[in-house]
Amino acid sequence: MNYNGKRINLSIFGESHGAVIGCSAEGLPAGFLLDTEKIRDMLDRRRASGRFSTKRREKDEFEIVSGVYNGRTDGAPLCALFKNSDTVPEDYLKLGGKARPSHADYAAFVKYGGYNDFRGGGQFSARLTLPMVFAGAVAKQMLDAKGVDVGAHVLEIGGVCDKRFDAARVDAGTLRSLDSRFPLLDGSAEAAMTKRLEEAAAEGDSLGGMVECAATGVPAGLGECGFGSVEGVLSQLLFAIPAVKSAEFGAGSEFASLTGSKANDEWRMVNGAPFTLTNNAGGINGGITNGMPLIVRAAIRPIPSIAKPQRTIDLHTMTETELSVEGRHDVCALPRAVVAVEAMVCVGILDLML
Amino acid sequence: MNYNGKRINLSIFGESHGAVIGCSAEGLPAGFLLDTEKIRDMLDRRRASGRFSTKRREKDEFEIVSGVYNGRTDGAPLCALFKNSDTVPEDYLKLGGKARPSHADYAAFVKYGGYNDFRGGGQFSARLTLPMVFAGAVAKQMLDAKGVDVGAHVLEIGGVCDKRFDAARVDAGTLRSLDSRFPLLDGSAEAAMTKRLEEAAAEGDSLGGMVECAATGVPAGLGECGFGSVEGVLSQLLFAIPAVKSAEFGAGSEFASLTGSKANDEWRMVNGAPFTLTNNAGGINGGITNGMPLIVRAAIRPIPSIAKPQRTIDLHTMTETELSVEGRHDVCALPRAVVAVEAMVCVGILDLML
Amino acid sequence: MNYNGKRINLSIFGESHGAVIGCSAEGLPAGFLLDTEKIRDMLDRRRASGRFSTKRREKDEFEIVSGVYNGRTDGAPLCALFKNSDTVPEDYLKLGGKARPSHADYAAFVKYGGYNDFRGGGQFSARLTLPMVFAGAVAKQMLDAKGVDVGAHVLEIGGVCDKRFDAARVDAGTLRSLDSRFPLLDGSAEAAMTKRLEEAAAEGDSLGGMVECAATGVPAGLGECGFGSVEGVLSQLLFAIPAVKSAEFGAGSEFASLTGSKANDEWRMVNGAPFTLTNNAGGINGGITNGMPLIVRAAIRPIPSIAKPQRTIDLHTMTETELSVEGRHDVCALPRAVVAVEAMVCVGILDLML
Amino acid sequence: MNYNGKRINLSIFGESHGAVIGCSAEGLPAGFLLDTEKIRDMLDRRRASGRFSTKRREKDEFEIVSGVYNGRTDGAPLCALFKNSDTVPEDYLKLGGKARPSHADYAAFVKYGGYNDFRGGGQFSARLTLPMVFAGAVAKQMLDAKGVDVGAHVLEIGGVCDKRFDAARVDAGTLRSLDSRFPLLDGSAEAAMTKRLEEAAAEGDSLGGMVECAATGVPAGLGECGFGSVEGVLSQLLFAIPAVKSAEFGAGSEFASLTGSKANDEWRMVNGAPFTLTNNAGGINGGITNGMPLIVRAAIRPIPSIAKPQRTIDLHTMTETELSVEGRHDVCALPRAVVAVEAMVCVGILDLML
Repeated sequence: MNYNGKRINLSIFGESHGAVIGCSAEGLPAGFLLDTEKIRDMLDRRRASGRFSTKRREKDEFEIVSGVYNGRTDGAPLCALFKNSDTVPEDYLKLGGKARPSHADYAAFVKYGGYNDFRGGGQFSARLTLPMVFAGAVAKQMLDAKGVDVGAHVLEIGGVCDKRFDAARVDAGTLRSLDSRFPLLDGSAEAAMTKRLEEAAAEGDSLGGMVECAATGVPAGLGECGFGSVEGVLSQLLFAIPAVKSAEFGAGSEFASLTGSKANDEWRMVNGAPFTLTNNAGGINGGITNGMPLIVRAAIRPIPSIAKPQRTIDLHTMTETELSVEGRHDVCALPRAVVAVEAMVCVGILDLML
Repeated sequence: MNYNGKRINLSIFGESHGAVIGCSAEGLPAGFLLDTEKIRDMLDRRRASGRFSTKRREKDEFEIVSGVYNGRTDGAPLCALFKNSDTVPEDYLKLGGKARPSHADYAAFVKYGGYNDFRGGGQFSARLTLPMVFAGAVAKQMLDAKGVDVGAHVLEIGGVCDKRFDAARVDAGTLRSLDSRFPLLDGSAEAAMTKRLEEAAAEGDSLGGMVECAATGVPAGLGECGFGSVEGVLSQLLFAIPAVKSAEFGAGSEFASLTGSKANDEWRMVNGAPFTLTNNAGGINGGITNGMPLIVRAAIRPIPSIAKPQRTIDLHTMTETELSVEGRHDVCALPRAVVAVEAMVCVGILDLML
Repeated sequence: MNYNGKRINLSIFGESHGAVIGCSAEGLPAGFLLDTEKIRDMLDRRRASGRFSTKRREKDEFEIVSGVYNGRTDGAPLCALFKNSDTVPEDYLKLGGKARPSHADYAAFVKYGGYNDFRGGGQFSARLTLPMVFAGAVAKQMLDAKGVDVGAHVLEIGGVCDKRFDAARVDAGTLRSLDSRFPLLDGSAEAAMTKRLEEAAAEGDSLGGMVECAATGVPAGLGECGFGSVEGVLSQLLFAIPAVKSAEFGAGSEFASLTGSKANDEWRMVNGAPFTLTNNAGGINGGITNGMPLIVRAAIRPIPSIAKPQRTIDLHTMTETELSVEGRHDVCALPRAVVAVEAMVCVGILDLML
Repeated sequence: MNYNGKRINLSIFGESHGAVIGCSAEGLPAGFLLDTEKIRDMLDRRRASGRFSTKRREKDEFEIVSGVYNGRTDGAPLCALFKNSDTVPEDYLKLGGKARPSHADYAAFVKYGGYNDFRGGGQFSARLTLPMVFAGAVAKQMLDAKGVDVGAHVLEIGGVCDKRFDAARVDAGTLRSLDSRFPLLDGSAEAAMTKRLEEAAAEGDSLGGMVECAATGVPAGLGECGFGSVEGVLSQLLFAIPAVKSAEFGAGSEFASLTGSKANDEWRMVNGAPFTLTNNAGGINGGITNGMPLIVRAAIRPIPSIAKPQRTIDLHTMTETELSVEGRHDVCALPRAVVAVEAMVCVGILDLML
């Protein structure tokens, strides 16, 4: 999968059960001193752990094979590789040719004439968010050096909600405080969310959720009118994350029930700097950043792999059958997906700023 | 603004108060007999009319200057031009340098160093949806010839809702019935919507809404895993429409509160053809179409131009000021925006099918 | 035809016998005061005139319909339109379906299933170099403001040669002196070239040639290693000009017979500035500019339309036949093609500098 | 470096002295049974050997880490990795900051602010042609399955020439016979070329050359009019090969001295199939293939690394200095470059055919 942006080209390769996955990022500025510890921290936040995550435990150690010289980016494509080690292809061989409902199995079978590597979902696996997060971790450092902070939190899991960002006032401190494995604005939501996860796990079921991401310090004037809108650029990146099914900016879908007088963000000046009293626009007017915090939300569908028996079809015989997805799966893509969303937003903003 | 798709390249040019606007579409198949009447019909559905639309009345007559020979596409870029006639730049000159809240005025001022043509919003104007709809009308005919039907309706205006598509069962007949100026699945919603529009108009206010679009007959296997997902491609197109602030597919943001067992779409066979009992995925698994109806929704923010007085800043003096937007504006971008959404979805699906 | 560059997107549309041709250029900086007189001058240099040019005489008047406000670029797509007026489609109807040898007739017939507009070559016509030159004239002004000068000359017509640029020492003054209808470094070559053109015209034949183009003031560091090389970028632009069949940089094809010690350009310093004693590299090392003058040459094939009888095939009957191309044709694409090459080089360099 | 073609996206990453280099190719058809032996053969033809090649001897063993399942392409990005083993960075450290004349050292120093990895030329190294050839070897097999044959030969080394392809009559058999380490149409040229190489080696000098490549079985109708011309597409690919400084098609630069009556390729019919008597166009009219053999030539500059002492500048002190390039270098990029040219042409044609 290849993101061919304005300045950044990001190629991601590999499959769930292949030997190696990785990414190659081009167009990054040279001379940037990479903090590999920070990369590891961000990868750690994405890594499976805890009761509700897949039992597939990968070390997620990366090897940078090009693009860094003496610790700094050197202008060549920044390529990082990750070995797959803890694969259990048997889980998938058991499936035979049964199309797991709401996975890409059937769509991929048609697209690739049945030749796709279905083990672990092949290239459709959430494992591929690992190189995405690597690229995002690099972008995040570069943004930090430009005074841009990006943070994201679990806004919702299975109907239990955290509070939303205060769109007009969110600041870098708040965003940095989200640097955890279960990032919440209101920590008190964790208990209810955990309870919801326990219930679902007990039922052999899974849960969906919502991620909210914000960026501060984004300069006005990024993006283009029309097909190169900031919303369009970020959406292309966000929908590359498996399970993302919506992208909304600022008030997003709530605009549908608002009046203009409620929705409009009036301009004010403080110390010679313009700002808006409210930030329903999510920092974007006409597809272009306006200097206010960028606010984006992405819905994450429930993990389609559930233990509960489901009816489906067999792709080889094209007859109906039943399956119960074994293997090792998260109960919910969140909170792990939070860091993938954050990563993609970082890549997008950096691309627009270069 | 340029959409550089897999096969189609669509360039749109012009400004609200320039002499001509238009589009050039490349990559369309040659030999297609264009039905200009159908193009006119679709443009008509977009055209301002009625009480709640701008009083700017343009004839929207197009001239095809290349790409058609003897009535058929000839393989050259299909270029159509539209003259702007009913412009009243005085309305905008009165604004001086006041940034209209939630318009692109400030963002464009920063991006273009104050050199942008602010009259009518320049290239940010909804007038530019005219060539978008032209391109969509051409794409729609070509899709029709391939057995793909696309239709859209007003799902919501200012909190008043139409019913949603029956995602797993929507058919071509339903989609074709939406070919009107105020397309609704449940016609009875029109009265309440009209009342809501009247209230807003009376208050010098505006309204937001939601468009829902569906496509039937879309073959399985379109799109790519990752950055070339169907969701990403359509989002880039949808966010090019001024005022679109969210894009969601299938159950979209509702996935956040669903369990996997509720969200999953089980496969079944009928007469040798696979289908899903439900269609929460909106016809897309893993970024790739699965043969079920494609379902997408886009929130449309309220028209930012309102008669109600608003406080804002003067871009030249960078001081606070007040304005009340005169000029000629819609009370709500819907139902006109419905056809723009439909057009962009047509362009996107055709591009993926070529 | 669409050039989707790093920063500039250039769409060109229209056909030889359509109503209008034009271009839309995106990504140009806003606020640039356009000198339309200079645009007209460059278009004039391309315009047919004199004994050896087509008798089709077009005024080549342009209308800028968007992208300019108060005389300056405004950030919107810069769109210019040109009307076709002096078309004589009868000349082409006489051809019936005869494939003119070495024209695109057969290739286009296959590609577009016979639906292409063959009159005047449709989109393949050299008429389309008009909007190319318009875009180049805009780019040239912008480069001039950045201290970059671009100039080109007739290096060869039908075997008669002008002298080459002194690659390491060519200066802005020399390049500016080429601003004429028959640009030569050594004016004395004109007589022999004219004689050669007269001979060919008398024989109902045509001639090929070579254009050489140079740019001074190009900063070091433009372009990318690999697929984004300066050579690759400029080649894509140059081969868009009908009749261009080679692109070479610096010593180009002569490198084949050189030794390294002869071919290498040794570095020297003068007043703290590095330069090379020779410039066989044409200002490009490893795909990236090195600060020396950029040198590029393009071969232009002879005009395929000749009065001499030729055997060919009839595309409708797929049988052999004979034709003698009537209509109005240049004897040689040069010197008119010089300005098209210069234009494309300007667009390419500007794109790399933005 | 990233080639973002019509259907194929090819990312190449790595540096001369990094741990791993590789490529990721997207958009290839799924289900193709890869012949890894053929890939190895093509890589072998590129591999250093013999007296005139670099003493750096790499095994060039590849590991395919994604995109192949059960021996067939599976639709995921086809990623192959190669380990660098025989690196001698000391050779480069000795250079200090001396800019090797006609290498990218100075251009890269400016572009990357001195942060580039200069050892072995970093990403500018001819080592990167290894993954290019891998991609080409895959493309070549896929073309073979479509009836397209591609072959290339050493047309010239340091002034000693092989004969040219008989452009209108070259056939698959001839192309297949070129499958060797020193491919020539007229084997008798090898002796003189070898002598020329010996002389240059003895003098501590290097040589340039010319590669000629042909493809048969290419269907008519590939490519686009204008910026997407076959010539433009292939040029972008060819100029990605280090040392390529010209690209010409068919008669190429010789068109400059031809008349139209000599240059034109007359059409004839044989058994219902059109062909041209001559093939000066190199199989391309108006940027689009015409069904005749595709003919392209690329000049390869002499290896800039020579033992002979040269004057140059020190990039750190910006003062003049002298150097004599030690390390391990080819005397001439040919015949090794032949296979890189062949590879890029294969990638380009396949991309246009998909």
